[in-house]
Amino acid sequence: MSLLVQKYGGTSVGTVERIQAVAERVYKTARDGHQVVVVVSAMSGETNRLLSLANEISARPIPREIDVLVSTGEQVTTALLCMALAELGQEARSYTGSQAGIKTDDSHNKARITNIDTEAVMKDLQSGCVVVLAGFQGVNEAGEVTTLGRGGSDTSAVAMAAALKADECQIYTDVDGVYTTDPRVVSDARKLDRITFEEMLEMASLGSKVLQIRAVEFAGKYNVALRVLSSFTEGEGTLITLDEEDAVEQALISGIAFNRDEAQITVRGVPDTPGIAFQILGAVADANIEVDMIVQNISGDNVTDFTFTVNRIDYDRVSEIVNTVAKELGAADVSGRSDIAKISVVGVGMRSHAGIASKMFQALAKEQINILMISTSEIKISVVVDEKYLELGVRTLHDEFDLAQNSQ
Amino acid sequence: MSLLVQKYGGTSVGTVERIQAVAERVYKTARDGHQVVVVVSAMSGETNRLLSLANEISARPIPREIDVLVSTGEQVTTALLCMALAELGQEARSYTGSQAGIKTDDSHNKARITNIDTEAVMKDLQSGCVVVLAGFQGVNEAGEVTTLGRGGSDTSAVAMAAALKADECQIYTDVDGVYTTDPRVVSDARKLDRITFEEMLEMASLGSKVLQIRAVEFAGKYNVALRVLSSFTEGEGTLITLDEEDAVEQALISGIAFNRDEAQITVRGVPDTPGIAFQILGAVADANIEVDMIVQNISGDNVTDFTFTVNRIDYDRVSEIVNTVAKELGAADVSGRSDIAKISVVGVGMRSHAGIASKMFQALAKEQINILMISTSEIKISVVVDEKYLELGVRTLHDEFDLAQNSQ
Repeated sequence: MSLLVQKYGGTSVGTVERIQAVAERVYKTARDGHQVVVVVSAMSGETNRLLSLANEISARPIPREIDVLVSTGEQVTTALLCMALAELGQEARSYTGSQAGIKTDDSHNKARITNIDTEAVMKDLQSGCVVVLAGFQGVNEAGEVTTLGRGGSDTSAVAMAAALKADECQIYTDVDGVYTTDPRVVSDARKLDRITFEEMLEMASLGSKVLQIRAVEFAGKYNVALRVLSSFTEGEGTLITLDEEDAVEQALISGIAFNRDEAQITVRGVPDTPGIAFQILGAVADANIEVDMIVQNISGDNVTDFTFTVNRIDYDRVSEIVNTVAKELGAADVSGRSDIAKISVVGVGMRSHAGIASKMFQALAKEQINILMISTSEIKISVVVDEKYLELGVRTLHDEFDLAQNSQ
Repeated sequence: MSLLVQKYGGTSVGTVERIQAVAERVYKTARDGHQVVVVVSAMSGETNRLLSLANEISARPIPREIDVLVSTGEQVTTALLCMALAELGQEARSYTGSQAGIKTDDSHNKARITNIDTEAVMKDLQSGCVVVLAGFQGVNEAGEVTTLGRGGSDTSAVAMAAALKADECQIYTDVDGVYTTDPRVVSDARKLDRITFEEMLEMASLGSKVLQIRAVEFAGKYNVALRVLSSFTEGEGTLITLDEEDAVEQALISGIAFNRDEAQITVRGVPDTPGIAFQILGAVADANIEVDMIVQNISGDNVTDFTFTVNRIDYDRVSEIVNTVAKELGAADVSGRSDIAKISVVGVGMRSHAGIASKMFQALAKEQINILMISTSEIKISVVVDEKYLELGVRTLHDEFDLAQNSQ
């Protein structure tokens, strides 16, 4: 007998029929002798419906009341799923975040879980009752409803799995696992059986948005075995493991991630003195704009060149900010472009294997793809290229590292 | 400075615009220096939407989960109203039933309030914050969400007003007060400025469904001054008072109530022995059918005739049940009809005035309206007539007792 936490996202519970299908799956799991906690999102579209009501009333609705409002979405799903389970003869009981003892800090709309009091949930599980928990929500010290931010149901599931010392946290979604790259770009992309947390983090942050990053971090930190599966098809999905040894059969490279929504800004001829990077990026951060890659090259003559990338929608605002700062700093020139894309090769294997970078650059060169920027981490090499080469670049690298379905 | 509880029903908060209009009214009340607790229902249509989701899943959804499901409707309204109040610069804070300390028994879907812990609400009120409470809901000992049954938001408002010792509990609805009779039947029906609780109970149970009966009973029991007003127009509405002295200027008769949905069953020639009424009505009660009027006449020869009325939709089922019982009892005959209606004259004044009944019967006779049944209480005289005479009967009595607008 295992204790399993299963999380079903908004698409998986988007209609009454789908909720009934989830009930069937949960029922089978329980009948196989497992203890099951089910974490559910709001039915797809519901959170947006509620938020649009709020926005009709106020351009900036008060955060406390947004949480009171949107947390109802998940609560509705828990009740409907318990009813569907009862129809199958499976005892089940719904829990709000508050009822399940999920304590958070006071940050409405983006609260962090501080503690989980699992007593009530454990009691139900031990009596053979399925626990159905509203994801994405908790309660602060004052007894107010809080939410964990969008996609926070993944975090609820992982946190509950950690608190209950569950054997596995299964994230059911509309894809059947983590792929070597986006199958819409490379048709023979292969589903991975296993991937490490670190790789998953690099893949997720680079655009393969299967799981919320915070959930993966949390799972890694508390050593929760995490599995991504499809709620619509059968299959083992992808297991995300802490242990690199588990991933020993894996290829050198796990996948090719990419991000199309990038724009780059270059400041040339900046005085090469301490504090320059802060002065440029501080102004950008003050405008609440997230910076992705940052590259600075060694240069002569006491001046340096400084390049960074941001999300494309922030490009115009960033250009304006940086032009102002550059003038103050006496920089020679500011330039930029928004028709770029980032491609990354990700794999824990590259820690112990040399030559991955040169293999990557050679493959791109063979296809006449010019590299605009390079940035590396321990388990990832990212390049920025002209956006028009994105698909070609991803396919080329997917082939180069033998990631295709029929190559294994 | 007064402490006011204002309750707004589903129609009054049915759209974002209406919620904004409610916010304006609450804001004005608060700005006039009053402490305000607002009790809200779900936006009109929302409870039905949620229940139909449940019914798609189960013919008999589990009661505990129905409460979890439908209680979200009121919660949504509280959040939206607080946002609208914030837009006007009025501090406000939403409360679920649980957060407001509304403790109930365990009867899901029809829970009764056992206790209210007003500490949190009082603290907010004293700091000048408007409290916005989700009506219709509470929490049981085990911390589970319960609901008070449909229309229970009135009960929430009255109970909260009693617990807070509020100066007045104002029920905002889509009518501007309690009328001498239904204005759709008698065009010059008059709005009453005052009515006693007892009269209101008789009026409400007889079809003038302005307020939930339980709420009126509760208000009477705890001496809460209750006022019915319109959320769409200005006006003083109708004050419902405990004190008969308050109603001293009132006419003898307060109003003419009626109910079209009646059906009658007569059992003739029943042996006139103790326990007969129980044997007939016990079988009806076992089928969970509510009986309205009951009339039994003195008769000779050790047999008696026994007539009662039920809601018309139960007529076929009741006929079947009573036919079976009548056979067992050796009754002579069972008959019935479903094309009848009840008309009642209501007024505390009749306690101290003779001749009301004969005046009523004479007026009906003048119009050739035959009376099928008569039943009386201390402050009410009801007659059952052929349904086709309903409107004529109501208009006749409304005139007879000088209730019209221009007659005062």
